[in-house]
Amino acid sequence: MSTTVQAPTQDLEAQLSAGSLVTDRDVIDAYASDKALFCPAGQALALVRARSVDDVVAVMAFATEHRVPVVTQGARTGLSGAANAIDGCLLLNVAAMDEIVAIDPVNQTCRVQPGVINQDLKAALAEHALSYPPDPGSVAISTIGGNVATNAGGMCCVKYGVTKDYVRAMTVVLADGTVTKLGTATAKGVAGLDLAALLVGSEGTLGTIVEVTLALKPALPPPITAVGIFPDTASAGRTVTEYMGSGAAPSLLELIDGPSVAMINAYGDFGLPDDVGALLLVQSNASGAGAVEELEAFQRIAEANGGTEVFVSDDPADSELLVAARRAVAPAMEKYANERGGGELVDDVCVPRSALGDFFEKLRAIATEFDVEIATAGHAGDGNMHPSVIFDAGDESQVAQAQEAFAAIMQLGLDLGGTITGEHGVGFLKREWLGHELDAGATLMHQKIKEALDPLGILNPGKMFG
Amino acid sequence: MSTTVQAPTQDLEAQLSAGSLVTDRDVIDAYASDKALFCPAGQALALVRARSVDDVVAVMAFATEHRVPVVTQGARTGLSGAANAIDGCLLLNVAAMDEIVAIDPVNQTCRVQPGVINQDLKAALAEHALSYPPDPGSVAISTIGGNVATNAGGMCCVKYGVTKDYVRAMTVVLADGTVTKLGTATAKGVAGLDLAALLVGSEGTLGTIVEVTLALKPALPPPITAVGIFPDTASAGRTVTEYMGSGAAPSLLELIDGPSVAMINAYGDFGLPDDVGALLLVQSNASGAGAVEELEAFQRIAEANGGTEVFVSDDPADSELLVAARRAVAPAMEKYANERGGGELVDDVCVPRSALGDFFEKLRAIATEFDVEIATAGHAGDGNMHPSVIFDAGDESQVAQAQEAFAAIMQLGLDLGGTITGEHGVGFLKREWLGHELDAGATLMHQKIKEALDPLGILNPGKMFG
Repeated sequence: MSTTVQAPTQDLEAQLSAGSLVTDRDVIDAYASDKALFCPAGQALALVRARSVDDVVAVMAFATEHRVPVVTQGARTGLSGAANAIDGCLLLNVAAMDEIVAIDPVNQTCRVQPGVINQDLKAALAEHALSYPPDPGSVAISTIGGNVATNAGGMCCVKYGVTKDYVRAMTVVLADGTVTKLGTATAKGVAGLDLAALLVGSEGTLGTIVEVTLALKPALPPPITAVGIFPDTASAGRTVTEYMGSGAAPSLLELIDGPSVAMINAYGDFGLPDDVGALLLVQSNASGAGAVEELEAFQRIAEANGGTEVFVSDDPADSELLVAARRAVAPAMEKYANERGGGELVDDVCVPRSALGDFFEKLRAIATEFDVEIATAGHAGDGNMHPSVIFDAGDESQVAQAQEAFAAIMQLGLDLGGTITGEHGVGFLKREWLGHELDAGATLMHQKIKEALDPLGILNPGKMFG
Repeated sequence: MSTTVQAPTQDLEAQLSAGSLVTDRDVIDAYASDKALFCPAGQALALVRARSVDDVVAVMAFATEHRVPVVTQGARTGLSGAANAIDGCLLLNVAAMDEIVAIDPVNQTCRVQPGVINQDLKAALAEHALSYPPDPGSVAISTIGGNVATNAGGMCCVKYGVTKDYVRAMTVVLADGTVTKLGTATAKGVAGLDLAALLVGSEGTLGTIVEVTLALKPALPPPITAVGIFPDTASAGRTVTEYMGSGAAPSLLELIDGPSVAMINAYGDFGLPDDVGALLLVQSNASGAGAVEELEAFQRIAEANGGTEVFVSDDPADSELLVAARRAVAPAMEKYANERGGGELVDDVCVPRSALGDFFEKLRAIATEFDVEIATAGHAGDGNMHPSVIFDAGDESQVAQAQEAFAAIMQLGLDLGGTITGEHGVGFLKREWLGHELDAGATLMHQKIKEALDPLGILNPGKMFG
């Protein structure tokens, strides 16, 4: 990488908005990583905090001329290392491009720059009685650009779909600095290949997203909430399978296993019971009597599958507290892990909903086989589970066991007809595993498309593509 | 093309299911065209009626070895010439691969071969209280494979989206005969690039789809229906703009202009009034009191925008008759055109819903400027309109005027922030126009991806890519 490290960043500086180029080593290093664990961060050449499309174009033109790799990043809240620096790269941070360009209530669309925080967009839309449903765990801190680049999910997906379902069009800066518009802002459009869809979830490997046109929904009706208590995860999993298979359309259906509930209770008081095998959190925002009917159906099915107690509440304060409890899983687990050596590997498999009972049985076998602690929460209604392997990061043998368990969980997802990643992405963390999911043809298609659109290999090299 | 015409099809025959290869010129020619007008059909080398994935693989291996172009087709109901033969090609017809492989009520998915007729799938799913909403005008005769290859739309889209919203995974035979699986059957998945989305709407230019996994919905509730009568299309257009902008979620919102209504009335008795400027057909299947409320809201907005009469009916027979009237536009217009020289160019622009009033004003100006008759129906709730230019195909000057009007309509769509094609596709008909919609960067991306995945240029050459 000696040639890249020697690239004359002062030539770049003249092309950028004043103050965009950062060469202070401490600042650069502070931007070197996202939230993934066990993903290395390299030493970047410089950091560019882009203020405009022109800044992004200048970075790509410079990168092309000097063959410098570029790692695009937003709020760096990703969990797969996709935004981590690699040696000699330019870190292209677009978080400062954070303007909501337009909100169009008549067409129910909006245009936003990539650095807009998801929650800020939601707040701005609420003033127009509109909503943008995708709600990754990072909703309060992650950017729309990052959400699009990773096809982010969240708790809404069981009813409202994922990020890709809301992307109509985008402006992208390609590897050579060309600015292009992909997709159409209209409700329908089939003029050519769906290149906007190709960019969604491409993790910075095909281009840099500098503007997005999103489809919106009318403001979502407020939900009512139910909590179901189960003796074990398998019975909770079977409940989800049967409930979703009945044609139910809950607006949220989350699972939290017993160890995770205990961690939440140790972290704060959210009114959750102690000593449960698993807990299901269900919401419905169906209109009229529909919501109550949907939660009563859940109650019947939960009790038929071994659920011991089901509470229903139409008090918005209860709903908010329960969702806050679910959102507390991540910090509660981090606290718990930190007290035990700090090791935590969060997995993200997605399986067919019919396989959830099986999934939990086999997950327990994995914990036993590798002698590790696994706590699981996730978007059960979509079959998208996040088992976390918790271990002492200072103990080499525990680290090795944890990594093997983490891999075994991905293999379990594949064995059950699912995927190694439902919403967190491949990045660095799972790049060696992508080839286990894709067959030879799909792998070759990935390589050929990558070479076609990034012939110099400067866009986030080493991520996604193993 | 002399080398391709000499390719030894008898070598291919030995690799195929018995009887799959057709070299009878009359049969081949009968398969040479889809339903597009003004699109030339070339002389194919042979027709293969594939029975299996192996047949498709054999065709592509042969085509690769002998550099023979391949045009994949299903029911040939497309309206853009994408399925038309080109000189020296193999016509690869997959309509006989028509098995519904699996229906999975628990996961609400199904796996189908490409030749399954859309309506047949709907009927099979109804037995499981499931539905597959996409409903192109050709629903009774078109195949799922063709629907996916063109990203077909229909009347449901205003509430339920288009074909791409239902495609989870697919099996594709690539240009060199490699069989690969793209996407994942699970509700979520972000393992690698979204190559299944890239294939949706690719019109046979990137690979041949041999199996599709579709997401399903619970059976849709029956709708109630309203009809609104307007003095002109512009007032109907403004009604759609305001109604959709109010957050309404109708399950159908179609517009039929006065000339089209007259053609329907001349074609059959569907109970439509005579002498209207335009007619809006609206349905709601919202639960409980929601449906009536949605149609009452429509009534208020229609009347405020110049609507003269609005009828609401909850009689399913009325609903069916009115939808049948809408579906009768195509044959009624064909009959009308045939009585006047047989010329009919059906356009397919999609504009922002806010532009519908403008669209109709300017459409009238186009009819005047080019002295042609234009009749329009379409999926107004999505802004996706089908103005048809009707003319005497035997009169050269009328043909020229009609083609200029057809082009002016596409330009109007672009000028209003829309697209040249909302659901019919590019194919041959609009390949010269694709470059008017795409910028230089997007055009180059198309070419590079095409070259990457079809380096010999044997997959439907000359279609989509101008």
